Amino acid sequence: MTHTPRTHLDRPLASVDVVVLTEDAGALCVALVERAHAPYAGLWALPGGVIRPGEDAHVEDTARAVMARKLGPSRFHLEQLQTFSGPERDPDGWSLSVAHLAVVPRRALSDMRPGVRLFPVDALPEMAFDHADIVAVAVARMRGKGAYSTLPTGLLEEAFTLPEMERAYTVALGQRIDSSSFRRKIRDLAILEPLPPGPRTGRGRPATRYRLAADIGPFNRTLSTGP
Amino acid sequence: MTHTPRTHLDRPLASVDVVVLTEDAGALCVALVERAHAPYAGLWALPGGVIRPGEDAHVEDTARAVMARKLGPSRFHLEQLQTFSGPERDPDGWSLSVAHLAVVPRRALSDMRPGVRLFPVDALPEMAFDHADIVAVAVARMRGKGAYSTLPTGLLEEAFTLPEMERAYTVALGQRIDSSSFRRKIRDLAILEPLPPGPRTGRGRPATRYRLAADIGPFNRTLSTGP
Repeated sequence: MTHTPRTHLDRPLASVDVVVLTEDAGALCVALVERAHAPYAGLWALPGGVIRPGEDAHVEDTARAVMARKLGPSRFHLEQLQTFSGPERDPDGWSLSVAHLAVVPRRALSDMRPGVRLFPVDALPEMAFDHADIVAVAVARMRGKGAYSTLPTGLLEEAFTLPEMERAYTVALGQRIDSSSFRRKIRDLAILEPLPPGPRTGRGRPATRYRLAADIGPFNRTLSTGP
Repeated sequence: MTHTPRTHLDRPLASVDVVVLTEDAGALCVALVERAHAPYAGLWALPGGVIRPGEDAHVEDTARAVMARKLGPSRFHLEQLQTFSGPERDPDGWSLSVAHLAVVPRRALSDMRPGVRLFPVDALPEMAFDHADIVAVAVARMRGKGAYSTLPTGLLEEAFTLPEMERAYTVALGQRIDSSSFRRKIRDLAILEPLPPGPRTGRGRPATRYRLAADIGPFNRTLSTGP
């Protein structure tokens, strides 16, 4: 580093925004916050916050603090998405945002703060800053990487049935998947562990519940859902 | 944004580092710069530079300026890799680096500035900052994404033969690939355009040369090289 900037304007304004994807009423949804103040008062924005050099160990820490402050889920998948930057994206000046993607089961969002609302990714409201672009990149990541990884299982509770898993992939990918080839691939990849059956609640055998096998990182194993 | 930091220490030091991957003597190599000054004088570092809010349109601009200043190729593939951050990675204080990945044909690097050297990714020298971690993420990206995309073709000149293409994939992935299934996939995906034959220089027909077809983004088409 040959040059150290000395005024705060020599350094970009640096923040983190989180695209929180979940499933609601059968649709892939994103959690947005209504802005109370300028700039963009009344428009919707991603939950976010400035990076706090004195407090955050790294940018993922900033993202987890944003999640805790505004959304409240305890268990969720979090990965870095992409860093967005430029002089125009924030009226306060040249800024960068290290955008993150969180994938969260709907029930884990029951404690959302007031002012946070879920919108289907295919029916977004008018959004502040460049946040519509950031959501578009997150949805493309979910639909692209979702087809060959366990990313869509982030939408599920820890224990789930095969129909619930298939539904999570359908919602995440935004398209119908072939049920029998999907189940054959899941079986061949051996990524699931069956759980002991719960108590009978009606007639017949309850559907077997599974969880992701302990020896795979939950989002590291390739899983093609193609035909 | 509810809070705007006012001193430069409230904002992280923000820079861009570029992992430049190329092929040299049959090995996947990275371009490193020997540091002349503290911190880490005498160790090797990625080419990089601070983000200049007054000058750069976005972080990719910073990365292209670094490439022009230190390496000089005109045509190369560039993509964002990941943002690294924290209080420990730079002795100057809490910093973030928006790391980029460049994939460059060897001949395009004939103008490298003095002090820049190529090292095989499997035989790296002692490196400054967290740059060894950044190189590891770049190599994992190349080997992971390389298996299902045209990313390895960034190692090639614009026109190439099929043996050259196969060799680029072998170098990029760090493993032998099955020649006949590779060529069958290339043919099935129809991602290449044959070029008119050049002049005969010896006995027999010269090998056909190809370029990537115009209607695919050079790095957007999936290409599985698996069996």
